[in-house]
Amino acid sequence: MTIHVINPNSLSDVTEGIDAAIAPMRAVSPVAIETHTLSEGPPGIETAAHIAQVVAPLTKRVEDLTQGASAFVVACYSDPGVAALRETVWQPVIGIGEAAVLTAMQRGARFGTISIQPGSIPRHMAALGVMGVATRCAGDLALSLSVRELSDAQRTEARLRKVGTALRDAHGADVLILACAGMARYRADLEEELGLPVIDPCQAATAMAIAAVALERAAGSKGS
Amino acid sequence: MTIHVINPNSLSDVTEGIDAAIAPMRAVSPVAIETHTLSEGPPGIETAAHIAQVVAPLTKRVEDLTQGASAFVVACYSDPGVAALRETVWQPVIGIGEAAVLTAMQRGARFGTISIQPGSIPRHMAALGVMGVATRCAGDLALSLSVRELSDAQRTEARLRKVGTALRDAHGADVLILACAGMARYRADLEEELGLPVIDPCQAATAMAIAAVALERAAGSKGS
Amino acid sequence: MTIHVINPNSLSDVTEGIDAAIAPMRAVSPVAIETHTLSEGPPGIETAAHIAQVVAPLTKRVEDLTQGASAFVVACYSDPGVAALRETVWQPVIGIGEAAVLTAMQRGARFGTISIQPGSIPRHMAALGVMGVATRCAGDLALSLSVRELSDAQRTEARLRKVGTALRDAHGADVLILACAGMARYRADLEEELGLPVIDPCQAATAMAIAAVALERAAGSKGS
Amino acid sequence: MTIHVINPNSLSDVTEGIDAAIAPMRAVSPVAIETHTLSEGPPGIETAAHIAQVVAPLTKRVEDLTQGASAFVVACYSDPGVAALRETVWQPVIGIGEAAVLTAMQRGARFGTISIQPGSIPRHMAALGVMGVATRCAGDLALSLSVRELSDAQRTEARLRKVGTALRDAHGADVLILACAGMARYRADLEEELGLPVIDPCQAATAMAIAAVALERAAGSKGS
Amino acid sequence: MTIHVINPNSLSDVTEGIDAAIAPMRAVSPVAIETHTLSEGPPGIETAAHIAQVVAPLTKRVEDLTQGASAFVVACYSDPGVAALRETVWQPVIGIGEAAVLTAMQRGARFGTISIQPGSIPRHMAALGVMGVATRCAGDLALSLSVRELSDAQRTEARLRKVGTALRDAHGADVLILACAGMARYRADLEEELGLPVIDPCQAATAMAIAAVALERAAGSKGS
Amino acid sequence: MTIHVINPNSLSDVTEGIDAAIAPMRAVSPVAIETHTLSEGPPGIETAAHIAQVVAPLTKRVEDLTQGASAFVVACYSDPGVAALRETVWQPVIGIGEAAVLTAMQRGARFGTISIQPGSIPRHMAALGVMGVATRCAGDLALSLSVRELSDAQRTEARLRKVGTALRDAHGADVLILACAGMARYRADLEEELGLPVIDPCQAATAMAIAAVALERAAGSKGS
Repeated sequence: MTIHVINPNSLSDVTEGIDAAIAPMRAVSPVAIETHTLSEGPPGIETAAHIAQVVAPLTKRVEDLTQGASAFVVACYSDPGVAALRETVWQPVIGIGEAAVLTAMQRGARFGTISIQPGSIPRHMAALGVMGVATRCAGDLALSLSVRELSDAQRTEARLRKVGTALRDAHGADVLILACAGMARYRADLEEELGLPVIDPCQAATAMAIAAVALERAAGSKGS
Repeated sequence: MTIHVINPNSLSDVTEGIDAAIAPMRAVSPVAIETHTLSEGPPGIETAAHIAQVVAPLTKRVEDLTQGASAFVVACYSDPGVAALRETVWQPVIGIGEAAVLTAMQRGARFGTISIQPGSIPRHMAALGVMGVATRCAGDLALSLSVRELSDAQRTEARLRKVGTALRDAHGADVLILACAGMARYRADLEEELGLPVIDPCQAATAMAIAAVALERAAGSKGS
Repeated sequence: MTIHVINPNSLSDVTEGIDAAIAPMRAVSPVAIETHTLSEGPPGIETAAHIAQVVAPLTKRVEDLTQGASAFVVACYSDPGVAALRETVWQPVIGIGEAAVLTAMQRGARFGTISIQPGSIPRHMAALGVMGVATRCAGDLALSLSVRELSDAQRTEARLRKVGTALRDAHGADVLILACAGMARYRADLEEELGLPVIDPCQAATAMAIAAVALERAAGSKGS
Repeated sequence: MTIHVINPNSLSDVTEGIDAAIAPMRAVSPVAIETHTLSEGPPGIETAAHIAQVVAPLTKRVEDLTQGASAFVVACYSDPGVAALRETVWQPVIGIGEAAVLTAMQRGARFGTISIQPGSIPRHMAALGVMGVATRCAGDLALSLSVRELSDAQRTEARLRKVGTALRDAHGADVLILACAGMARYRADLEEELGLPVIDPCQAATAMAIAAVALERAAGSKGS
Repeated sequence: MTIHVINPNSLSDVTEGIDAAIAPMRAVSPVAIETHTLSEGPPGIETAAHIAQVVAPLTKRVEDLTQGASAFVVACYSDPGVAALRETVWQPVIGIGEAAVLTAMQRGARFGTISIQPGSIPRHMAALGVMGVATRCAGDLALSLSVRELSDAQRTEARLRKVGTALRDAHGADVLILACAGMARYRADLEEELGLPVIDPCQAATAMAIAAVALERAAGSKGS
Repeated sequence: MTIHVINPNSLSDVTEGIDAAIAPMRAVSPVAIETHTLSEGPPGIETAAHIAQVVAPLTKRVEDLTQGASAFVVACYSDPGVAALRETVWQPVIGIGEAAVLTAMQRGARFGTISIQPGSIPRHMAALGVMGVATRCAGDLALSLSVRELSDAQRTEARLRKVGTALRDAHGADVLILACAGMARYRADLEEELGLPVIDPCQAATAMAIAAVALERAAGSKGS
């Protein structure tokens, strides 16, 4: 049995980052954890059109993987295709956006969200509305770094510290979420510097997938 | 390493029911799972005074167990002592009430809650307020059965079906929560009869404890 | 210049019903109003997968129509593709679900929603969450009629009256929404029988499209 | 048939500004649009007493205009008399405050409101509470300019830019509302400078009145 | 010094009922309590126009009474003129609607409201929106009795029991509000029959006026 | 008959400050007002464990005082034991946190809260969630002064001004709450300097206790 973590964009180095982020969980997972790149996806998921266009190939991929699958994780903070997959396969389907928020709700009173670009913030607000948890969000601020600037780790770290500090001190956040699939390597340092829990959504979602596998076991698998 | 599931009331047969509910999870948990009865607790936790009075002995018990502990589950739907324990130990502390609600939020749009007695409903409403998720709750209805009536499985089943049907049809719930630590044995049948997911809070919380253990592993354990 | 009303399912008789519903508005519209059937769409939009799959052909169709277009209406209550279209074309894009809710908010304190099937209610709840207006919704009840039963006008009318009465009397709705693109012919009678305003979403959305055309004119058209 | 836009304060130059703001809409309106000054009103509507005192003369004026009227717009952001007029005449009655908020909800995820004086902000918060949309508001900031300062266009523009920038950057607004009947002439420039949609409430409300006329036509006029 | 309780409708027998309801408080009030009938008011306050029209004479009356006044209570559940009076006089001004809700919030988790006529329920919903407490309301049901039927005490009692029972059992209310200035005489019996606290708004508001007098004393009177 | 105001921490000088804050109310209270120190309590209530541990001795003290008691005030902003006491004694029990918020809701549209330490803010957020009034809170900022710094009145005043100004100007608060039992002596000056009402929670709660005594009188005492 396997938990499949699917990066719905086509960039395999993003998938590699995700794999590195969750690798330590393999030692504690009751089932294998595999990461996948949706090569049919766009190179990044930044628009509502992107979100819609990955649903069909993502569903196809999930259906191909369904034999022996324990759970699926969709590794994009916008949770593309999660609703569709939940209607399609019997296995638990975890979106990393939803998982990060539910995890943050257990770690603090109000969470702050660090986004890459301001353009994704309205999507995040919509997702919080769907979840009915808007009052738990202290704020959502963007790094506003270009792809090139993001490749400069030092610059990215400095910007993360600045935005995280603003969420903590001006907005009152007591837990932070890195609202992107590819920032896990900055998590631990940021947590230590700011003195707040910092959630990586891929790690949170993979943990929730492990939980779902355990819960299915207790409940009697619907697939049996 | 061990996940400790502590029943904060003094009734060992309740603990036995909890143990049976989560037993299948042992096969998929990366760590041992032990159940405990808080013998210093009251025979049932039905008032705000009960909730307060278990905090000290529960904290003492948790501190005694902290060596080699991976996570703690407090197995009472009112989540007594969870806030205090989170301030006391570095390990994840999971309340079954919070865990059930977070799990239900992933399974449906609006959850219905089946309580044992009407007197606990205001407490549940307060907890939803703290979580900021009141709009996700379709309704909370009580079985209103006495302890003696609850010991009659057939009567309890009939009442669960009636209340669950009302939550589904009159209140619009598409997922149900059994708001008590001791109803797991009715879960599967109710789920099948009503055609809705039914969450047992002890199972949901133990799954979340397993998730927390996995997440700690990825994040680098704070205890290391 | 033209307002294009696009039925994103492939059933041309649904489009004909929409056309009949909005036909009286042509006399008061400053621009032409054309209805279209998305022949590439599924015969009905009932799942998250359907919603995703219409986005690409709907966007293609809208782009083909963009020359001379004043505004677009997406004539499915789930508002498929509306977010994507808003990122793609400069013209106003109106979803009939959003338009119906905004219109109902001006006609009463709490709206009741009459859905065709219970399966769409969670989607409606999610949409209210995105809009941030969940507390304005008195309830959402389904007709639960099969396609064949829906073709029986008398039966449908009887069921509409029953569900509308329940929303008014048991849920406290003071305005109703017909949460489907194809129920306009029942609107006036239901309104008279129940003594409450009843909103047809295609009519509400087309009116909002006319408003958007007027507002663009005042604001200075972005397309000029 | 005519849409009547009534400025409930006694200043005819405010009415002239409103007329200029909506003048381009006359070309696309199916009915005439007339602006009126409520000479019996106070010179400005700044208190709850002002709001109450205009209801009677405003109702009288509306009743005098009812013959041949298609819809009424009350051109004050506090929406004085709108509830009373809706109980009095069969025609649609549009308040510019409500219309601006509903329009902004279609243009962005969270709206920022630019008020003239801080004293009106609590009233705006109350109105958002009535509408049930408080979570959609990113913030409400005041220009805090005196009447004399407001007559200095350059100073007003500079202050609008500053407050609008704060709402966009510090509060996360992605659409702005000019919360006053008399600021339309600054709208287009502010929109261009800030890169966000900026809503003028009189324009938004007149557009909604045109929509209401169209919707009445489709629904079968209640007045026929 | 005196607390002035003003019935803003013109019916002196309503005022007499209010006076009887609060009479026992005179023994514990630090200041005199006088009841007044606003003879210039309408015989009942049932529309938005009524609410507006009482503001001017009510303000005039309050200004006439301001010398030696400790606080003012506006004894109509719609709280007409309360916002205007708060801008006009330095003394505390208590609306019985607001006071009843704040009192109920201290007595239970979710309050049910018993209205006389369904037509007032949308107004109550608006008021809850302004207060930001909509999620605390379990439901609002109307007696739907005519004036003549209300004069039949036995019939009114039976209807109160029925509506109160529905709020308790079907809506989950654990405290009730009599949403009218003239129902105090039914309060105690209803409380006993239903086993829930029942709030009379005039009594709640007069108590809050006494509190306000005490708080002013501690704070140092603004009027001194 | 007596209103008992109990400081649940063991510091008698805190009790003295509370006594001084409410002393002027004795002249207007219909019953005596006595202040008490819970010597069994911790020297300060700063953790969830502290909150739980005071419940038993506080309940014991309240039971000892019940003869001749009119009402009880728990003088700690976290309202420890209030829920338990309400289940135990028939007299009204007022928590100063709840009372301060309810009082602030009558004085402004959005309240700002001034906390001593940032660590208590999540608890305040939870309390607002229970009350269902999160949208009424403009913000909660901490003085972040040590006990030693708090003993420097000049420094404390300067910090109160700074934090209060931020709540007023950057967060939009129009009424402030001093979220601590021991800051009453700064209240009047802060109110005057900032031009906003400033609520001391002990004064607000004692006023509400007086109200509760009056309301009991009107309702017919449950204790009679």
